[in-house]
Amino acid sequence: MDFSSFLTSLGTSFLIFIVLMLLFTWLSRRPGNSVVYYPNRILKGLDPWEGGSRSRNPFDWIREAFSSSEQDVINMSGVDTAVYFVFLSTALGILVLSGLILLPVLLPVAATDDNVKAQKTNGSNQTFSEIDNLLMGNIKDDSPRLWAFLFATYWVSLVTYFLLWKAYVHVSVLRANALMAPGLKPEQFAVLVRDIPPAPEGQTRKEQVDSYFKSIYPETFYRSMVVTNNKEVNKIYEKLEGYKKKLAHAEAVYDGSKKTGKPEGLRPTTKTGLLGLVGKKVDSIEHYNEKIKELTPKLEAEKKATLREKQQACAFAFFTNRVAAASAAQSLHAQMVDTWTVMEAPEPRQIIWSNLKIKYFQRIIRQYVVSFIVALTILFYMIPIGLISALTTLDNLKKLLPFLKPIVDISAVKTVLEAYLPQIALIVFLALLPKLLMALSKAEGIPSVGHAVRATSGKYFYFTVLNVFIGVTLGATLFKTLKSIENKPNSIVSLLASSLPGNATFFLTFVALKFFVGYGLELSRVVPLIIFHLKKKYLCKTEAELKQAWLPGDLGYATRIPGDMLVITIALCYSVIAPLIIPFGVVYFGLGWLVLRNQALKVYVPSFESYGRMWPHINSRVIAALVLFQVTMFGYFGVKKFSFCTFLLIPLPILSLLFVYVCQKKFYRSFSDTALEVASRELKEIPNMETVFRSYIPPSLSSEKADDDHFEDALSQVSRIGSFA
Amino acid sequence: MDFSSFLTSLGTSFLIFIVLMLLFTWLSRRPGNSVVYYPNRILKGLDPWEGGSRSRNPFDWIREAFSSSEQDVINMSGVDTAVYFVFLSTALGILVLSGLILLPVLLPVAATDDNVKAQKTNGSNQTFSEIDNLLMGNIKDDSPRLWAFLFATYWVSLVTYFLLWKAYVHVSVLRANALMAPGLKPEQFAVLVRDIPPAPEGQTRKEQVDSYFKSIYPETFYRSMVVTNNKEVNKIYEKLEGYKKKLAHAEAVYDGSKKTGKPEGLRPTTKTGLLGLVGKKVDSIEHYNEKIKELTPKLEAEKKATLREKQQACAFAFFTNRVAAASAAQSLHAQMVDTWTVMEAPEPRQIIWSNLKIKYFQRIIRQYVVSFIVALTILFYMIPIGLISALTTLDNLKKLLPFLKPIVDISAVKTVLEAYLPQIALIVFLALLPKLLMALSKAEGIPSVGHAVRATSGKYFYFTVLNVFIGVTLGATLFKTLKSIENKPNSIVSLLASSLPGNATFFLTFVALKFFVGYGLELSRVVPLIIFHLKKKYLCKTEAELKQAWLPGDLGYATRIPGDMLVITIALCYSVIAPLIIPFGVVYFGLGWLVLRNQALKVYVPSFESYGRMWPHINSRVIAALVLFQVTMFGYFGVKKFSFCTFLLIPLPILSLLFVYVCQKKFYRSFSDTALEVASRELKEIPNMETVFRSYIPPSLSSEKADDDHFEDALSQVSRIGSFA
Repeated sequence: MDFSSFLTSLGTSFLIFIVLMLLFTWLSRRPGNSVVYYPNRILKGLDPWEGGSRSRNPFDWIREAFSSSEQDVINMSGVDTAVYFVFLSTALGILVLSGLILLPVLLPVAATDDNVKAQKTNGSNQTFSEIDNLLMGNIKDDSPRLWAFLFATYWVSLVTYFLLWKAYVHVSVLRANALMAPGLKPEQFAVLVRDIPPAPEGQTRKEQVDSYFKSIYPETFYRSMVVTNNKEVNKIYEKLEGYKKKLAHAEAVYDGSKKTGKPEGLRPTTKTGLLGLVGKKVDSIEHYNEKIKELTPKLEAEKKATLREKQQACAFAFFTNRVAAASAAQSLHAQMVDTWTVMEAPEPRQIIWSNLKIKYFQRIIRQYVVSFIVALTILFYMIPIGLISALTTLDNLKKLLPFLKPIVDISAVKTVLEAYLPQIALIVFLALLPKLLMALSKAEGIPSVGHAVRATSGKYFYFTVLNVFIGVTLGATLFKTLKSIENKPNSIVSLLASSLPGNATFFLTFVALKFFVGYGLELSRVVPLIIFHLKKKYLCKTEAELKQAWLPGDLGYATRIPGDMLVITIALCYSVIAPLIIPFGVVYFGLGWLVLRNQALKVYVPSFESYGRMWPHINSRVIAALVLFQVTMFGYFGVKKFSFCTFLLIPLPILSLLFVYVCQKKFYRSFSDTALEVASRELKEIPNMETVFRSYIPPSLSSEKADDDHFEDALSQVSRIGSFA
Repeated sequence: MDFSSFLTSLGTSFLIFIVLMLLFTWLSRRPGNSVVYYPNRILKGLDPWEGGSRSRNPFDWIREAFSSSEQDVINMSGVDTAVYFVFLSTALGILVLSGLILLPVLLPVAATDDNVKAQKTNGSNQTFSEIDNLLMGNIKDDSPRLWAFLFATYWVSLVTYFLLWKAYVHVSVLRANALMAPGLKPEQFAVLVRDIPPAPEGQTRKEQVDSYFKSIYPETFYRSMVVTNNKEVNKIYEKLEGYKKKLAHAEAVYDGSKKTGKPEGLRPTTKTGLLGLVGKKVDSIEHYNEKIKELTPKLEAEKKATLREKQQACAFAFFTNRVAAASAAQSLHAQMVDTWTVMEAPEPRQIIWSNLKIKYFQRIIRQYVVSFIVALTILFYMIPIGLISALTTLDNLKKLLPFLKPIVDISAVKTVLEAYLPQIALIVFLALLPKLLMALSKAEGIPSVGHAVRATSGKYFYFTVLNVFIGVTLGATLFKTLKSIENKPNSIVSLLASSLPGNATFFLTFVALKFFVGYGLELSRVVPLIIFHLKKKYLCKTEAELKQAWLPGDLGYATRIPGDMLVITIALCYSVIAPLIIPFGVVYFGLGWLVLRNQALKVYVPSFESYGRMWPHINSRVIAALVLFQVTMFGYFGVKKFSFCTFLLIPLPILSLLFVYVCQKKFYRSFSDTALEVASRELKEIPNMETVFRSYIPPSLSSEKADDDHFEDALSQVSRIGSFA
């Protein structure tokens, strides 16, 4: 890519960003769109526009984002989001502090040398652009100027350690404060008990669990809830809920027809067969009412059957204080370690019920199998894409789906399809990848969504760094120098190092595209807006359906964090070789911070809260990126034949590993467990244990009636209700 | 070594054993020796001879050993000893079950082939003995007979897995039962708290610890004891105790002189200078009385000063029930993981006080440094020996210690010294090694003696296996085949494998020597007996001195277990190559079981109790030996050119690692922590917390007076003494 096309691409991206931002200022002020641009505020019962007036400065959102405190973010969007902002500002800080030294020092040092020109005169047939004069590649081999680059490598590393350490301490305090908060969090009173051995003869599962915990915690154990296999009852429950929604929809349509058409209205009809498309035509309202009447007793019967007969070898145990629960979650309960395993209970909303029953050794086996599959996916991800591409060539398509033949044979369609089919296959595969990784993470037997998201994020990180970053870098070089491969250094490190400079402009453009277009789309929410308005116009008839249409979801850490990680990896790895990347990285994280601050405060609704448990992973992955940087720099100094001084870089990776090790030792356990000094803080009021207990009853099993006599089988008796009356 | 000299050596060893056993039967029946042969029974207040009569069958000890139950061993010698017997019987079981199949199958298969003869006729200049006909070396290359050996390798491995699994389950139950026992064990009510952060302004260390634990455990926390730096007070205390002993000795001498000499007696005298050898001559009794009078108030003052001013950043916290203590020891207490680290309290008698204050990261650093030093010691242990040998050559000795010259120049002395000096250096170094390893283990910052013994035992195991087993095997081969080294297989595994058969007779003799002479000396206790009688005759005047002279010490796991491990490693590695080793191994563990059963019941007194925490280490080391066996077999089948069938052995090491992994996951944590279901067993009676607390006061700080008003500084107030009154 030469310099002018680089500028063109940069300019286009910037233009798109400006357009999207103007669109945002215009669209977000229209009251009909407030549910798209302010859903988080609306759901919290707040006024969408803080001042109450829409006639404000169109750039007020920037002021609001800057003036919002960390506590605001925690209040509106939870600790996980606040921790995500710590990550953004740490990455920003690393790049700013690095840039402050590297740009004024390295650019002049590089620009005043003339290795590039020298190579040009030597008749090397590589193309060089103006940018190349500013890169480390412009330094001659074994020049004393390389000392500046060596120093820069140390500076970047030390800045990273310093800011990461500060951030870790900060996040640790954030987490502790959140866990200490006096509000009632049901998960702090519960533990998840898995791998319960078979109940002894003459004892129900519930009696077994109760007597076990009562003997260990005679004073603090409240009651237990045996987990049941809810597959069947969930199916009926969802069917029933579906019919209820359809009924509401049909009634809304009927009401609507009364207003617009005849006064007696037009009763909507439906067909009883597949998807409402075939079968006998019936009156919708009557039909759904009938179905509901039919399913309601069936649900009740199934509920009872589930509670009585489908109990599984796992349970939740509830304690009357937080210290007891936190300490139970960390203690070994049974002499055989693979029975009665106790862990912290996830929040009720993020429990993956179907995973709870998976046994100890099966979980371990599943983990290894999944790691193996993921490693294969990462290493050989081109193969399934290639297969799909091969299958989706036109000739194959015609063979497989003969009815497409007449369409495909139109020449215009044919041209377009032939050009885009492989790319579409790639895009589809890449779009499906997070879902695949999420499914794999869940298959590990992880009990909570938050944990599964963390696991997915890790897998996706390795995928992007290995395939996008290293893949693109090495791929381009290997492709270019396929003939002269013998002249290239043998080791993968030197190869990677020597490939980096050639791809500098590619990654500059990549980062720019990511922040201008990516954050433009993020801020303007064009896609959700269009989808919402389409749904509103053609599909939604009831309030519930409308709300469903604008519900914004959460920030999506599973893919968002690996995306940011890729940028910080690129920025770090190029920081010394091509310091020009630093301003791009700064804009990426600065703009990201600003845009996402707005989105966190006004748009996204977190779907779970893990109190910052993502941080240790973020920390170690930034260090992984740093080690990659340090190792490639070691390789690149080798390529530059910087004699023995190259070995001065050897302490850096060791220092990084030491840093990770010390962080791990000093902080990690307080992220995986709850420290007792934190759990021992007094609550605002004595918790209502019944509320805590009931929050863990899945919706399909909960009963509107206040009595819980039909829970007697799976749920233990209230043992000392007197003390909370 | 040829066959006849092998038989000679075997016969000699056996003769020594018979002599030593006869000596034992004769000596142990003399009443004057009962303190040497029955100290454990005497200390427990039991009659040395169970039946009360000495005129029993001289082989009664064998009957008694066989008829004693595991419970008897636990009662007399503790769980650790019982676990050691589980190890002995498991090793015995592995060898017996292996031998039952291997001896009748492999010996005929080997004896009827004629590879050895064939090589002899080929004019190979190696020497072959009759034993070689019974080895796997007598099988021709790629013979189908090798299938029997392949099968045997699998059989030995499977037998080992099966018996180790059974043993692990058994030991786990033993440990659980011991921990559940209703008797009062102070360490079950205490935890050790280390890395306490600096006390806040205006708070004493004691107040800090108390308020911290009271806020977390308002109901179960009893009180705390801040650890002090006792170096100074211990010094004074020991001096004082020394003077008290000397005074008693002097008085006994004086009393003795009254009986034997003049009726008014001869008052003993001593010199006040170095070691009582130089200086002014004074009356001993007066002198010591004076010293005691002088030191007693000094000790009291130092006690007070220690308790007030020498408090360290660690403490013991006491709880009123076992579950609270067990659970506290496993839980994270502070948000910063490297502060307020809480772990199980060691027994009072095995606390290494000086290690308690060592900080978190310093402990980790010390561990790595020590591992590094140990690795160096193991790898280069010949170098210090070589240095010592060089220093101890006669010429050097004469230079360094010129006063020796006249003695050394006597020709007889010279000859002997020249022949033995290097060997003496080796023996001294090997004798010092356990002490060195123990000192290194203690330098790791380990807080209890039991743990340090386990760490030492591990280091010693690696040392013996690497240097004695592999060193001897490879060393001999390398020495023999120094010229033909090029023909030898290149890899260390094949080299080791091909070296094994040549050393079979060496190790047969080694094992035989170890059991006949080793266990003979063990049973007859000749050395302790002689030392005791010498001391009794010439040194001991008081009862206390006499008791000191016969106190037997403990079984010495730190060196005993590695010794046994070496034998099981040798037996496993040779089991298929030279099945003749199996009966020798059987005798070693059988005889060992018998002799040590007698010693455990009657002689040794355990110095600490770790409730079987040694077992996980034993388990993984037996598996390490098994993996060594499997890998060398893989190499040896390769040497035998057993074509692709050799690869059938690849699953075995994988299976072994899997076995260790599953054991680790299923059992290990219940050995490092106390399972709560175990700790929650009811005690026989409500514990007297004051007794528990007082058992942790070191003797130099304890006060005979009942009041503990001068403990107020380092020891917290009794908070709810009422509930235990």
